[in-house]
Amino acid sequence: MKLLLINPNTDASFTELIGREARKGVFPGTEILCESAPGAPRFIETHKDEVLCAPGMMALAEKYSDVDGVVIACTCDPNLDVLRELLDCPVVGAGESSMLLALTLGARFSVLQTSESSVQAKRELVGKYGLSSRCASVRPILEDEGANLEERLIAAGKKARDLDGAEVITLGCAGFSGLDSRLTEALGIPVVDGVLAGVKMAEALASRGFTTSRRGKYRGE
Amino acid sequence: MKLLLINPNTDASFTELIGREARKGVFPGTEILCESAPGAPRFIETHKDEVLCAPGMMALAEKYSDVDGVVIACTCDPNLDVLRELLDCPVVGAGESSMLLALTLGARFSVLQTSESSVQAKRELVGKYGLSSRCASVRPILEDEGANLEERLIAAGKKARDLDGAEVITLGCAGFSGLDSRLTEALGIPVVDGVLAGVKMAEALASRGFTTSRRGKYRGE
Amino acid sequence: MKLLLINPNTDASFTELIGREARKGVFPGTEILCESAPGAPRFIETHKDEVLCAPGMMALAEKYSDVDGVVIACTCDPNLDVLRELLDCPVVGAGESSMLLALTLGARFSVLQTSESSVQAKRELVGKYGLSSRCASVRPILEDEGANLEERLIAAGKKARDLDGAEVITLGCAGFSGLDSRLTEALGIPVVDGVLAGVKMAEALASRGFTTSRRGKYRGE
Amino acid sequence: MKLLLINPNTDASFTELIGREARKGVFPGTEILCESAPGAPRFIETHKDEVLCAPGMMALAEKYSDVDGVVIACTCDPNLDVLRELLDCPVVGAGESSMLLALTLGARFSVLQTSESSVQAKRELVGKYGLSSRCASVRPILEDEGANLEERLIAAGKKARDLDGAEVITLGCAGFSGLDSRLTEALGIPVVDGVLAGVKMAEALASRGFTTSRRGKYRGE
Amino acid sequence: MKLLLINPNTDASFTELIGREARKGVFPGTEILCESAPGAPRFIETHKDEVLCAPGMMALAEKYSDVDGVVIACTCDPNLDVLRELLDCPVVGAGESSMLLALTLGARFSVLQTSESSVQAKRELVGKYGLSSRCASVRPILEDEGANLEERLIAAGKKARDLDGAEVITLGCAGFSGLDSRLTEALGIPVVDGVLAGVKMAEALASRGFTTSRRGKYRGE
Amino acid sequence: MKLLLINPNTDASFTELIGREARKGVFPGTEILCESAPGAPRFIETHKDEVLCAPGMMALAEKYSDVDGVVIACTCDPNLDVLRELLDCPVVGAGESSMLLALTLGARFSVLQTSESSVQAKRELVGKYGLSSRCASVRPILEDEGANLEERLIAAGKKARDLDGAEVITLGCAGFSGLDSRLTEALGIPVVDGVLAGVKMAEALASRGFTTSRRGKYRGE
Repeated sequence: MKLLLINPNTDASFTELIGREARKGVFPGTEILCESAPGAPRFIETHKDEVLCAPGMMALAEKYSDVDGVVIACTCDPNLDVLRELLDCPVVGAGESSMLLALTLGARFSVLQTSESSVQAKRELVGKYGLSSRCASVRPILEDEGANLEERLIAAGKKARDLDGAEVITLGCAGFSGLDSRLTEALGIPVVDGVLAGVKMAEALASRGFTTSRRGKYRGE
Repeated sequence: MKLLLINPNTDASFTELIGREARKGVFPGTEILCESAPGAPRFIETHKDEVLCAPGMMALAEKYSDVDGVVIACTCDPNLDVLRELLDCPVVGAGESSMLLALTLGARFSVLQTSESSVQAKRELVGKYGLSSRCASVRPILEDEGANLEERLIAAGKKARDLDGAEVITLGCAGFSGLDSRLTEALGIPVVDGVLAGVKMAEALASRGFTTSRRGKYRGE
Repeated sequence: MKLLLINPNTDASFTELIGREARKGVFPGTEILCESAPGAPRFIETHKDEVLCAPGMMALAEKYSDVDGVVIACTCDPNLDVLRELLDCPVVGAGESSMLLALTLGARFSVLQTSESSVQAKRELVGKYGLSSRCASVRPILEDEGANLEERLIAAGKKARDLDGAEVITLGCAGFSGLDSRLTEALGIPVVDGVLAGVKMAEALASRGFTTSRRGKYRGE
Repeated sequence: MKLLLINPNTDASFTELIGREARKGVFPGTEILCESAPGAPRFIETHKDEVLCAPGMMALAEKYSDVDGVVIACTCDPNLDVLRELLDCPVVGAGESSMLLALTLGARFSVLQTSESSVQAKRELVGKYGLSSRCASVRPILEDEGANLEERLIAAGKKARDLDGAEVITLGCAGFSGLDSRLTEALGIPVVDGVLAGVKMAEALASRGFTTSRRGKYRGE
Repeated sequence: MKLLLINPNTDASFTELIGREARKGVFPGTEILCESAPGAPRFIETHKDEVLCAPGMMALAEKYSDVDGVVIACTCDPNLDVLRELLDCPVVGAGESSMLLALTLGARFSVLQTSESSVQAKRELVGKYGLSSRCASVRPILEDEGANLEERLIAAGKKARDLDGAEVITLGCAGFSGLDSRLTEALGIPVVDGVLAGVKMAEALASRGFTTSRRGKYRGE
Repeated sequence: MKLLLINPNTDASFTELIGREARKGVFPGTEILCESAPGAPRFIETHKDEVLCAPGMMALAEKYSDVDGVVIACTCDPNLDVLRELLDCPVVGAGESSMLLALTLGARFSVLQTSESSVQAKRELVGKYGLSSRCASVRPILEDEGANLEERLIAAGKKARDLDGAEVITLGCAGFSGLDSRLTEALGIPVVDGVLAGVKMAEALASRGFTTSRRGKYRGE
């Protein structure tokens, strides 16, 4: 099985990190292609960034039209609807996949975000998927609550667990990939990485030959 | 006051229709600019079309940076979030505006769509705005229920009114502009045209100097 | 266009304030009549007050039956349903209108109330309009959080913005009219005054000849 | 225990019917006072009727200030909030009570109304109580679906049961009192009369000395 | 009337307490049978405990098949669906009943739980009944917030009232029975005991001969 | 990886069918154990059946305590909460898993049930998972709409697709296993079998070493 991971931004270290982590957890026979969307913004932070990375993402989808599944390796799932519309093979988002796996591990999940400014967008994404009643909170990590990313994620995760009643944590940025195991240990509750979750969902769907519905939302042209 | 109406598609007859209807209902002193998004698809029907018309819409917003308000003259409100993020002046969508006005005229509204294939997308738009509990239904017009557009809209509107309990109708396509008065008369309940509603909301907001919030969702860069 | 503003209570300074503020933002040709409901309680604070001000409000509606629109200039929107039922011209509430405008300026709004005792009633009003998912919070101003009304509103608004994630503020009392500009500046997010919002919505609706639906909720006798 | 049943309208046959039915199902020691609200409209059908019957209802509450509980014997529960605010003893509505009992008898209930024009108001009442997810439908009886009231109620009840999935029926008009047993038999599912339900809830609350909360919604003056 | 109270656990002091409190508030002629489910776990704390006490509960239901109503005297309402399915007479849960009575006494209720670990289960129970929008919070009592159970309940109740906006409190454990009066006095808002509420609801339902619907959810075999 | 499939009922042909279908779609290295819950009812149709199959399910879980994941091979997901509480390895239900996969293939799914009597229970299961807004309908197959199971499923699926707007179908009975491919072809939209979906979700979760959260809902003893 061949899966295409699309990094919607053009930060090379991101692409490298994502590809490396994705390959760790795959089933025998799963091959991971991981590329950055050509012509996309350096980072995906605004609504404008999301539309500007669309052409590059579509170009990648066309270039690798023979893959068995596609993972959008960014937890805000930019242009997920566009790619589902264009492609027959399963397309999943890192954000969506991390929430779906989280639903099976505890009653309510919290999402940890890189900054306060991205909280509302993620809250709306959860709402778009119809999962708000299962979401305990969306919390930003805070600059002054730790010396490094890991410490800040632990601080935010503890608040989600103790103040918001989160039973599971999902990582709200693909750049947090690789920290899930240590965070799981530190927080004592499951922590789900979006990129890995996306790979697992894509494997699950592609191995059974599922294709996106052509009725209604993803009807295409 | 100067308002920019953006037709996200490049169908010239659409642009002409929209501009003409918009100018009918304005307050003294309101000037309407109406342009088509350069480089956009001929019609906006798919998720792909929505992202492909974004660059042209952004270009128009930049070109007319001195306007007092912007109306996206398409009831699926493509790239509303992007333009709100980019501009300080009020930006409204024809779809959103028609629903907001409808809320003041009756308990529940129904939206009439051009085709069955666009129903789910509009349903999700209503949900995105948090207005699902006020929406009686989203209904397509049907080819075989009338000899022309007006007859088909009346047929669909009657079903919305009698079967779904709609007390108000909103027109789910900018191409229906100009038919609202005759439909109001035929159906006996208020019918709200999206383009006109957008102009009225933009006038209301711009006349009081409101600007889009820069906290959270529309923070921009 | 002639608009009737009804102050449901009989506090003369309220009526004077509301009329003065309302006239500030109107379009050329809009004439504002502003009167207090005869025989109403001094202030509208309880459910009993709401029913007791109804006869006076209906009397005003009858007296000025030639107006083009009516604004209930109290943010708890007392007897809005009664007047919509009785009148053909558009009738809007200050509370409802402030929320509808707020929806176009940010993802979620908070309402500031005069006292803790009125919080639940406003929360239910938001729910009645079907807008709970767009409401970040309803917050009271607190006696000990400022030397005057303006300071207390700023204190409450900061909590709404920083703790509840409000992107827009609506003023939950007509008596706050006139403070919106200074609050907008102090808080850095849009602040919507209910009376002004009501006037703008009434202008928008009346200028296009909309009338309340006679199907279902507002069918009348 | 002394319970006051308030008929908000002034139809004497209604008052007589309600009083007679209410007395049938009480516990030993429960005394039923049943009076019509003085000065109220003949029937309660509009929002205007609801506010116009308020003074008479308040007068009755004052006149019988020594009762142990009050039942508003109209299933649209007019002025329930006003009386709860004014009185310390429990106040229940026939509509609310019938829904609460119904919740214990099946998963979802349907409400049968006298006419299509009252359907939306009842739907909103269900929503106000937060019970929409438990309500299968609100259905009107139809003139041409039976030779008399009982036949029409059976026809509407069958549709609720078979098309909407109702497991329980509540009667949406106090004028339907006395028909519950025969309807239960005809439909094969529980049918809850509002007046009786109100009496049972009032007995339950009053026998334990419960009083309405004075925090928040019913704080009074 | 004969009511069966089933204590799902086998703690004898619980059974004794529940039976004693239940008998205090009944109408003349109501006889209370109170027994512990044979073979059940000592306490009902986990999902496993809930299924393990089912056979004993069913055995009691069969043994006392002539009763007029059944109360499950545990606020997590274990196996309520099972008993409703098996029995024709009304079956109510202490948790459900306390919430239903609370709905008539204030706008929103909070539930007080014995421990943090049971909060999510109770939150889901509220959701199962469709009452989430009326629930201000579910709060645990805390070991270090009082010298005894009563003090801890008062501390938690004050937080629910002042921080969460609860207007009514329901007691989330049958073991809190008997404390309702003192808590009502201490908190100044109504406090509803589950066992008593269950008895009152069962009396109300049984006195009118209601039976559980056999359509849909409780169809049985 | 070793996965345990638990058939909660004791119908041997069911167990055989489930095991055979489950093995078809697994990744290399996945071993499927499939057993029937000892002492369980012949079929799982009532709430009583659900609690009566619990001991057998727990016994299987204990017997095969070394497996990497457990699938409850019944789409009403009986005792899912109990097993999640007891086991550290991932436990998934066939019903839940089919819905989660369906979420990635279209906007809204419908569930097809064996009979009308099971519709409400499945509707509540969807609600329990917080997925109601993504569910177009729960529909029973009807005896008179086809000569065999496949024809009836196609008839019900067409109604779900055309009348309810379903974009994806999930099979609401483990006994429908093996028909998914033919139904997908006949209906032209994706059809998700619960048993297969459960196996894929279990593989996904187990391959990454996820374990159920011990905070809150599944805390256990």
